[in-house]
Amino acid sequence: MSSTTLAARRDRAFGAGAPLFYNTPLHIVRGEGVELFDPEGRRYVDMYNNVPCVGHANSHVAEAMARQQSTLNVHSRYLHEGIVAFAERLTALHGPAIESVIFSCSGTEANEVALRMARMATGKSGIVCTNATYHGNSEAVGKMTRIGTGQNAAGDVRAIPFPEMLRPLVPGAGEDELREAYLDRLRQAIRGLEEDGTGFAGLIVCSIFANEGLPDVPSGFMARAAEIVREAGGLVIADEVQAGYCRSGQWWGYDVLGFKPDIVVTGKPMGNGLPLAATAASRTLVEGFRAATRYFNTFASSPLQAAVGMAVIDVIERDGLAANVATVGAFLKSALAERKGRFASIADVRGHGLFIGVEIARTDAAREPDMDKAVDIINRLKDRGFLTSNAGAYRNVVKIRPPLVFKQSHAEEFLVAFDATMADVDG
Amino acid sequence: MSSTTLAARRDRAFGAGAPLFYNTPLHIVRGEGVELFDPEGRRYVDMYNNVPCVGHANSHVAEAMARQQSTLNVHSRYLHEGIVAFAERLTALHGPAIESVIFSCSGTEANEVALRMARMATGKSGIVCTNATYHGNSEAVGKMTRIGTGQNAAGDVRAIPFPEMLRPLVPGAGEDELREAYLDRLRQAIRGLEEDGTGFAGLIVCSIFANEGLPDVPSGFMARAAEIVREAGGLVIADEVQAGYCRSGQWWGYDVLGFKPDIVVTGKPMGNGLPLAATAASRTLVEGFRAATRYFNTFASSPLQAAVGMAVIDVIERDGLAANVATVGAFLKSALAERKGRFASIADVRGHGLFIGVEIARTDAAREPDMDKAVDIINRLKDRGFLTSNAGAYRNVVKIRPPLVFKQSHAEEFLVAFDATMADVDG
Repeated sequence: MSSTTLAARRDRAFGAGAPLFYNTPLHIVRGEGVELFDPEGRRYVDMYNNVPCVGHANSHVAEAMARQQSTLNVHSRYLHEGIVAFAERLTALHGPAIESVIFSCSGTEANEVALRMARMATGKSGIVCTNATYHGNSEAVGKMTRIGTGQNAAGDVRAIPFPEMLRPLVPGAGEDELREAYLDRLRQAIRGLEEDGTGFAGLIVCSIFANEGLPDVPSGFMARAAEIVREAGGLVIADEVQAGYCRSGQWWGYDVLGFKPDIVVTGKPMGNGLPLAATAASRTLVEGFRAATRYFNTFASSPLQAAVGMAVIDVIERDGLAANVATVGAFLKSALAERKGRFASIADVRGHGLFIGVEIARTDAAREPDMDKAVDIINRLKDRGFLTSNAGAYRNVVKIRPPLVFKQSHAEEFLVAFDATMADVDG
Repeated sequence: MSSTTLAARRDRAFGAGAPLFYNTPLHIVRGEGVELFDPEGRRYVDMYNNVPCVGHANSHVAEAMARQQSTLNVHSRYLHEGIVAFAERLTALHGPAIESVIFSCSGTEANEVALRMARMATGKSGIVCTNATYHGNSEAVGKMTRIGTGQNAAGDVRAIPFPEMLRPLVPGAGEDELREAYLDRLRQAIRGLEEDGTGFAGLIVCSIFANEGLPDVPSGFMARAAEIVREAGGLVIADEVQAGYCRSGQWWGYDVLGFKPDIVVTGKPMGNGLPLAATAASRTLVEGFRAATRYFNTFASSPLQAAVGMAVIDVIERDGLAANVATVGAFLKSALAERKGRFASIADVRGHGLFIGVEIARTDAAREPDMDKAVDIINRLKDRGFLTSNAGAYRNVVKIRPPLVFKQSHAEEFLVAFDATMADVDG
């Protein structure tokens, strides 16, 4: 089957408009570790996918999945030890304040639970998020999708400017002044919610501001923001769907930015491709939510989610993937930062662990974001066999976020292709 | 590990209040076909679970799952033939008006898509549902959860009385008069939405009114209701999460009640336990939704969902499960109906295929619903090794909904336990 024929069938079966990556979409049939293969056997190094965190087709996970599906896979209204043990193992990866967990099937579902939990616990409905975020696709969670584009409020949601050093809210300000300027926007949003009668339930952020483009954040911003939220009676929700599970080289993004959440949401990498997400919090918060909702999720908290979720953590721990991420990530970030001086289009290199953003900007004095060039770069990288994407508030950031098993040798191979690509497009 | 110790661990790990079945919760470790087993090897006949529709631990499904997870499991922004073929196969099971599909991970997510699709297509937001329904647990979909309890409206949602013959809206009315009375409530709800400026987007129903308690419905109700909806410019959404996939002995519940939906939602049985759901409609409706939302769902439309979804349909077709459901379901329903004359607590026996409700009522003249006795019956049946639950608008219906591979011999075995249980509690 040609890719053109397949694309036409897909347009009918899915409806035209279902998103595809790259100018010429990639047709893939097989994966292994950090590699993907097309029908002709051409190899691509996957530098985008965080869901298959322990590698495509990881055998430990696939075997655990097969074993459990052949034994028992049923809903959570029976006692089953596997899912309890998985909940215990997951909460133990956080500090002692995170005690209990509600499993679901997607980051969207887990963020729905988090928002409702914060609203029920506070008796208020106002949520503050950033103006370039994404937390999911349901009606309630989707209100937060980039609401900064043309507006700063949607119903009971208020958006504040995401903190960043590159294009600061107060040009020329020092780091302390800048931190206070961003914190003032948070204080204003909270005050606005209180003044209009909505009331303030909490702040939700991706712990490393991934969709915002992995900005460098004024030092101490999140620690102080969390204090402000709690002083106002609100709860801090850390969306760790992208930030967590050793993506940064530490287990949780909130440790990187130095704050403690009240509610933690995890998703994408948890099941290496099995739909699996979680909302974790204190036992008091979770029990308040359960009492108010009698929440039940047919496919969640299943023996299958448990077995697969356990297998993923097994591999992360057994293979020392946090250390791998820290080492290889530091090497790659440093190598890319060094190229900032070499290629004029690179305005900034940022990130944590194996989540790196290369900011592409126009080369004139204003250094405006250059989305078109970023898109050109990711398409050229794909033609050279390296899969990335573009992201960030201005869609001009080359997003590098490979499976956690990405090695030094892959990074070195990538740098050769990156240099050739930048030589093609720079200037 | 004792069940008591496990329950205490579960209370901490999940938070107390996570729902469990039965007075003494069942601890299970293994399943096979329609049987579940506890740690001591005690066998239970599963007459509740519709998710493992082709049987617990079905080997064809488990092997397809293992094979695909060992080959490739990635998101849908690459071309992949498997998921396109699965979408084609799924839509072909409907009439020609259902052309395209949006996959997701749960019935909740699929109903979110259906509601937003109807609202976008009509430019109106008002949704009509019944007063004893359940369509999912998100904020938007959860508005429809039993909103008849104490209110008939929640935001832009209006509830109408579900149609039933047993406790009719107009006591003593003939079937034609009764059908018109229920249809009038639909007309009133639509008019109310138009008059208050909300506007009417559509009607959503479970095609066989499962959560309402599988009522016998005045003949022709749904066909005429669908006409009324369309005459008012709205869309008909059939929630086939419980009704579909041969549960009734036919592929779709809407064929049983004789109407054609514009949007069809499927979920629970699609993946035999893998999180998998779908919203299917005309290509025009799907493309309108895609253009407006750029909907993307990380875990959905994956090669894994495709392989498992295909394997489930394979087994249903290969093993003739629709015919099995029709035959065994008819036998069991008829045997239970015969017992209505024998046990005074049985007020009614209803249902379609292998989805049967036994209505338990007080034995005095008023014949009020008797939830307590229904709960007693399901606990006693469980102690005898048969798993059911209670459901319906009054929670007084013994709900019988086994995997589709349930055989005549299981039904016969169940009837012995049912007779003994009813002899214990009747009167």
